[in-house]
Amino acid sequence: MPDSPSARLSLSRRRLLTGSAAVLGAAGIGAAAATAATRSEATAPTVPFFGPHQAGITTPPQAHAHYIALDLRPGAGADEAVALLKLWTTDGARLTAGTSALADTEPELAQAPARLTMTVGFGPTFFDRVGQSGRRPPSVRQLPHFQIDRLEERWTGGDLLLRVASDDPVTAAHAVRVLLKNVRTLATIRWTQRGFRNAVGTHAPGQTMRNLMGNLDGTVNPTPGADVDGVVWADGSGQQWFAGGTTMVVRRIAMLLDTWDELDPDARDLTMGRRQDSGAPLTGTLEHDVPDFTRTRDGIPIIPANSHIARAHARTPAERFLRQAYNYDDPPPAGTTTNAGLIFVTYQRDIDTQFLPVQRRLAQADALNTWTRPIGSAVFAIPPGVHDGQFLGQGLFE
Amino acid sequence: MPDSPSARLSLSRRRLLTGSAAVLGAAGIGAAAATAATRSEATAPTVPFFGPHQAGITTPPQAHAHYIALDLRPGAGADEAVALLKLWTTDGARLTAGTSALADTEPELAQAPARLTMTVGFGPTFFDRVGQSGRRPPSVRQLPHFQIDRLEERWTGGDLLLRVASDDPVTAAHAVRVLLKNVRTLATIRWTQRGFRNAVGTHAPGQTMRNLMGNLDGTVNPTPGADVDGVVWADGSGQQWFAGGTTMVVRRIAMLLDTWDELDPDARDLTMGRRQDSGAPLTGTLEHDVPDFTRTRDGIPIIPANSHIARAHARTPAERFLRQAYNYDDPPPAGTTTNAGLIFVTYQRDIDTQFLPVQRRLAQADALNTWTRPIGSAVFAIPPGVHDGQFLGQGLFE
Repeated sequence: MPDSPSARLSLSRRRLLTGSAAVLGAAGIGAAAATAATRSEATAPTVPFFGPHQAGITTPPQAHAHYIALDLRPGAGADEAVALLKLWTTDGARLTAGTSALADTEPELAQAPARLTMTVGFGPTFFDRVGQSGRRPPSVRQLPHFQIDRLEERWTGGDLLLRVASDDPVTAAHAVRVLLKNVRTLATIRWTQRGFRNAVGTHAPGQTMRNLMGNLDGTVNPTPGADVDGVVWADGSGQQWFAGGTTMVVRRIAMLLDTWDELDPDARDLTMGRRQDSGAPLTGTLEHDVPDFTRTRDGIPIIPANSHIARAHARTPAERFLRQAYNYDDPPPAGTTTNAGLIFVTYQRDIDTQFLPVQRRLAQADALNTWTRPIGSAVFAIPPGVHDGQFLGQGLFE
Repeated sequence: MPDSPSARLSLSRRRLLTGSAAVLGAAGIGAAAATAATRSEATAPTVPFFGPHQAGITTPPQAHAHYIALDLRPGAGADEAVALLKLWTTDGARLTAGTSALADTEPELAQAPARLTMTVGFGPTFFDRVGQSGRRPPSVRQLPHFQIDRLEERWTGGDLLLRVASDDPVTAAHAVRVLLKNVRTLATIRWTQRGFRNAVGTHAPGQTMRNLMGNLDGTVNPTPGADVDGVVWADGSGQQWFAGGTTMVVRRIAMLLDTWDELDPDARDLTMGRRQDSGAPLTGTLEHDVPDFTRTRDGIPIIPANSHIARAHARTPAERFLRQAYNYDDPPPAGTTTNAGLIFVTYQRDIDTQFLPVQRRLAQADALNTWTRPIGSAVFAIPPGVHDGQFLGQGLFE
């Protein structure tokens, strides 16, 4: 886990006092971070940027997240990729500490990070583009086609993934703009997805979020600490450079809310296998009660076999991953009332063994599929965290 | 001003105890509000729905706002408009109190209003559609064409305006969907604009927001209380039914951030007439210092005559209005990095005498015009507030 904010502050102050801040280079990241951390104690929580893992994955989800896929420009290769990663590392370290980026023209918009994080990933094509095809984590490749897929090119694929998230939408928008404009000679935007969850202070901390179908979303997530760490972080047994990294799946799932509205509450609950109001499985009374898929009434399973949770639940200990869902709600096309859905993001050590068995079951039969439609799909390798003086993904190039 | 939440709670309880809740009709708005207000004391602030003025205007701006223009369907007239307004009144009263709308299929998404407000307006064409052309407040008509305008049809006009705002983006999205789907047989969506300001808790309360150009936005607004009330609320001297109402201008202003970025800080400050960092006028040191447009250095005005504040400031006491600006930041078209700007909304008793003189000066010469582009424009009459048992805009139909 990354250092705590106070530990990080002490470290920065120590560096400053001993003069070792000089090794940080002209950017003066250490000094900047110390200033920001002091301020943040009063007004603006920060999430440490440096550490064994990238931030923004096991970090409790912020209220606003931008997921942006980029493609390296034609002709760009390893040199350009490294230049881009160095820029993002420098600016990401500064912005997440509440310090303006280098040459930031709106430094005032960087002063309240509000748990700002930046997370960077490499798509399957990235490894080819930078001449490192042999070091691609094997499960980071295009997902197989599922019969439920109605994928649109404009939401699919990408050489690079940039996730920027904050509890403040202005801070997030500024950080995204800074990070994108500084690399525009190196890469172009392929797609942008913007999502939201409940604002800080409007719901009890730790409460499972509801999606726009009204369902609690993320109930079965691994618990913070050793449990989620074991599910998410790669140990390097496959690719040594990837130890401490993870893999990411981004599925854009449209919700067909107009027809979903036509279901009565009982039909909804049977579709999900859970009660919409409490989130409890139909065999229980509380959200976190363990569903009993064997229980029957009059010989019929209480939780229908094709309900969402009957299909989605892990059938072996290996089939677990971290869900990081965000709502999207974009202006609807003419003549319609709603253009909403879920940016469904998962993290796991290995896509093939953890995510795919579940995804295959859902694609084959899930009562919920009638009201959802996957319209985008992408996978990325999330390189491990970065230590001060390194750049993100450096291990891939060594 | 509307009642305070506690006053409203007492009122609702009194109604309930005396049995007069029956006059509220089947919806049971009073009882629902009492339940919600009790809950809200613990988790979810509410803004009173009933009162002499609509909420959402002098209400301190919430973090998230949706501005939606609708057109009555072909053939629809006064009957359909009244039906729509009754639906919105009933659902608006419930949702803003933290109670689900009638036939709400996701009641759980209504439980944390987070200062939810609903505000309704009538465009110039609305008065013709409902056979009340003679009762249109005279200044509520299409704005004149300004030479800076590059208006796009998709952001312009509308029979009706629905503003929904909340500090929680999920609550706002749910309320918008409920309010729109319930009237879809009566009206179609013309345009939707979604904006954001700083999240609650990330900045000091009352702090002027910054727009995505980095400038403080809204410094010269009237102060809460009698000052803003005098600027905003119509007294009925023109149209008696309109007493307690106001007029609204919605301008969508794209920011040309890529070229704005090329300006050095001094050039930016001369363009605005204020310092970007502090917001102070170039003749002062603090944000709220009164600009001195007469001061010169070497015979040259310190605040340039064509700077934004030199053109925008009120030259007579009549030229004042309430600004309610929201940032927008939508996914950029292919090949570009940014699609951002301002949803610039103003409220005033009368558009002709308060807003237009300032707008004309800005259109004629404002150094900032080089980096901004008006792409949408609409005006609306905001009817007065509603009392329990009435529907919004009822006075127009009596």
